[in-house]
Amino acid sequence: MKRISGGVTAAKGFKAYGVHCGLKKAKLDLAVVISEVPAAAAGVFTTNLVQAAPIKITKEHLALGGTARAVVINSANANACTGSQGILDAKAMAGAVAEHLNCSPEEVLVSSTGVIGVPLPMDRIMAGITKLMPNLSREGSSRAAEAIMTTDTFPKEYAVEFELGGKTVRIGGMAKGSGMIHPNMATMLAFITTDIRIEGSLLQQALKEAADRSFNMISVDGDTSTNDMVVILANGQAEAREIKDEGPDYELFCRALNEVTEELAKLIAKDGEGASKFVEIHVKGAPNQSAARTVARSIASSNLVKAAVFGEDANWGRILCAAGYSGAVFDPDKISVFLGQLKVVENGTGTAFDEAKAAGILSSDEIVITVDLGAGDEEAKAWTCDLTYDYVKINASYRS
Amino acid sequence: MKRISGGVTAAKGFKAYGVHCGLKKAKLDLAVVISEVPAAAAGVFTTNLVQAAPIKITKEHLALGGTARAVVINSANANACTGSQGILDAKAMAGAVAEHLNCSPEEVLVSSTGVIGVPLPMDRIMAGITKLMPNLSREGSSRAAEAIMTTDTFPKEYAVEFELGGKTVRIGGMAKGSGMIHPNMATMLAFITTDIRIEGSLLQQALKEAADRSFNMISVDGDTSTNDMVVILANGQAEAREIKDEGPDYELFCRALNEVTEELAKLIAKDGEGASKFVEIHVKGAPNQSAARTVARSIASSNLVKAAVFGEDANWGRILCAAGYSGAVFDPDKISVFLGQLKVVENGTGTAFDEAKAAGILSSDEIVITVDLGAGDEEAKAWTCDLTYDYVKINASYRS
Repeated sequence: MKRISGGVTAAKGFKAYGVHCGLKKAKLDLAVVISEVPAAAAGVFTTNLVQAAPIKITKEHLALGGTARAVVINSANANACTGSQGILDAKAMAGAVAEHLNCSPEEVLVSSTGVIGVPLPMDRIMAGITKLMPNLSREGSSRAAEAIMTTDTFPKEYAVEFELGGKTVRIGGMAKGSGMIHPNMATMLAFITTDIRIEGSLLQQALKEAADRSFNMISVDGDTSTNDMVVILANGQAEAREIKDEGPDYELFCRALNEVTEELAKLIAKDGEGASKFVEIHVKGAPNQSAARTVARSIASSNLVKAAVFGEDANWGRILCAAGYSGAVFDPDKISVFLGQLKVVENGTGTAFDEAKAAGILSSDEIVITVDLGAGDEEAKAWTCDLTYDYVKINASYRS
Repeated sequence: MKRISGGVTAAKGFKAYGVHCGLKKAKLDLAVVISEVPAAAAGVFTTNLVQAAPIKITKEHLALGGTARAVVINSANANACTGSQGILDAKAMAGAVAEHLNCSPEEVLVSSTGVIGVPLPMDRIMAGITKLMPNLSREGSSRAAEAIMTTDTFPKEYAVEFELGGKTVRIGGMAKGSGMIHPNMATMLAFITTDIRIEGSLLQQALKEAADRSFNMISVDGDTSTNDMVVILANGQAEAREIKDEGPDYELFCRALNEVTEELAKLIAKDGEGASKFVEIHVKGAPNQSAARTVARSIASSNLVKAAVFGEDANWGRILCAAGYSGAVFDPDKISVFLGQLKVVENGTGTAFDEAKAAGILSSDEIVITVDLGAGDEEAKAWTCDLTYDYVKINASYRS
């Protein structure tokens, strides 16, 4: 597995671009990603009962055949809670891109992120699409990654390359996150492309598992926004042999996909609103995978833990408390906690650790908190950031 | 139902006091409440898997007979994650109070709140109990309410008086809360006393229901600290007829108890860490009581909603989003939302409301957000506060 430069156009046969169409004051706010040929497509979506129009339309389009030619994404406006007009607007976005590509509107997926409840200014979107389409290129991926940002402070791209049956294949992607990530995630979007050829239901299965290990470990199950979406397109342009079953080729593909989604997820956590530190919660010794993930997410979602990390305060009681209310079942008297390499809790009670050393560990930009439940061999990781004054500042006046 | 002054000693036959024993730098940190005669006792406790020593001991003592003479409470130290020494220390606290009262240690309940993982300095606690006991009095309730505070900015007391079968009876109590309340509650404690005589299992049932309607509506189920505890003592000293079944007397008692617990819960929400505004979430039109409570709590626990209230930003999308991921099932296209009297959402989409008027409503100290699910007749209320810079400041360095 080799990391390569680029993102959503790193794989062969994909083009992208981003433009400013007028949803934001001056920054890029509209992106399109296309595959030169029809691609197998799969998606995972928010579990929120309130679903934005683009979520509904993209699900509909994927259900029709599982192939797609393009994704069109706007930022700054979620097209959520916009009633029947919102549905028409999402369809019109797909239709406009389809017209340029000379394909059916159902082969275009739609995604939006931004403020809820404001109708899309469709004249700007339509003019933007017209301006954008002629500029699609392999070099356009970074502009696309920029155009999907909301309160993100940097674009998020990642790509890898590896050999499959003697052919070089690639997986790349872009994401936007921000919001506090936990516990009430602002919209998380990710768009992944690959030039592998793979059977549609396997693609869906691989994406679901990859999302569970990555994007779902920076959020809390169920606490998803109205617009969350992860989409993958596989267009077969590398001309490697098709992945048709769960054999070694599929496993290799999953490993590569997991690397891309995990790295994108970490970039999202690093760019949490107002974040000054990146935190990895590593839960070990869990009786099963579900317990490991539940405890890791619960700790990663605790405001009190996140504020303590900001304050560089080795308040391990908050870590135990969050593990305790997670819902997972374990013996609190067997739990150990490490800040970096420093053991601060053993058998459920504090060790006589060096407070200055602990504060030193917490003063770095990247912190690993390891929790060993002492109850098995399963492990999971979750990623988060600290809770800072700036988080409150950003969210007190997001619409303004 | 008449509100009267006082708190935990408003009912006949109760005394209380608070002293400084040296857990805090200078403020009161140790309280005792006693009943002059053995009282029926009941409690509701944290559901956290990690339970502090005083929780374990108080449960044990209540299980032995359901009567109690006293409660001893310290602040500034949770006696949680303190191993077997913590258990011995909690027992010693009960034992010391029992000696002064000449009763069995099992008739004394124990409660602690504060930092997790630090052994109790028992010499100070013991000296504090010796200093405290001779000063117990009806007038001592406000000192007791002060002594149980941690980051609370004011003591919380409430009491009512009413007639039961021709006799005047009273229910009063004190509480401490703070922490952000949501979503990772710092310790919430409440101690309630009444001079009614009531059968033990009815007392337990009434307390459970009252806690569900009040304290559990300022927190999120399961997200409870290691030390949360609500205890009630009923000593019969008003000499009114005993409540033996679920008849009109019981209903009257429940109404009075609900008023006391609800008012104490609201005081806790008003005093949330760093809070500048008090927010009531009123969910109406729910298909059942559980859905009403789930939606109300989900909105009240949303960092994004709380930050928007702080910023006086009428971002109703966040309210719908939090309702949507709550787990309750409803039709998002039937939901209405009101800020004060101003309808901002109808049938799931925004109305053309006056933004200036909305901002005006959000600028007041007390805000009611009403959400009508349009799906039934059940309703529930939850209470919270806004998310401010000061919340982060307080929690970044709680231990320091």
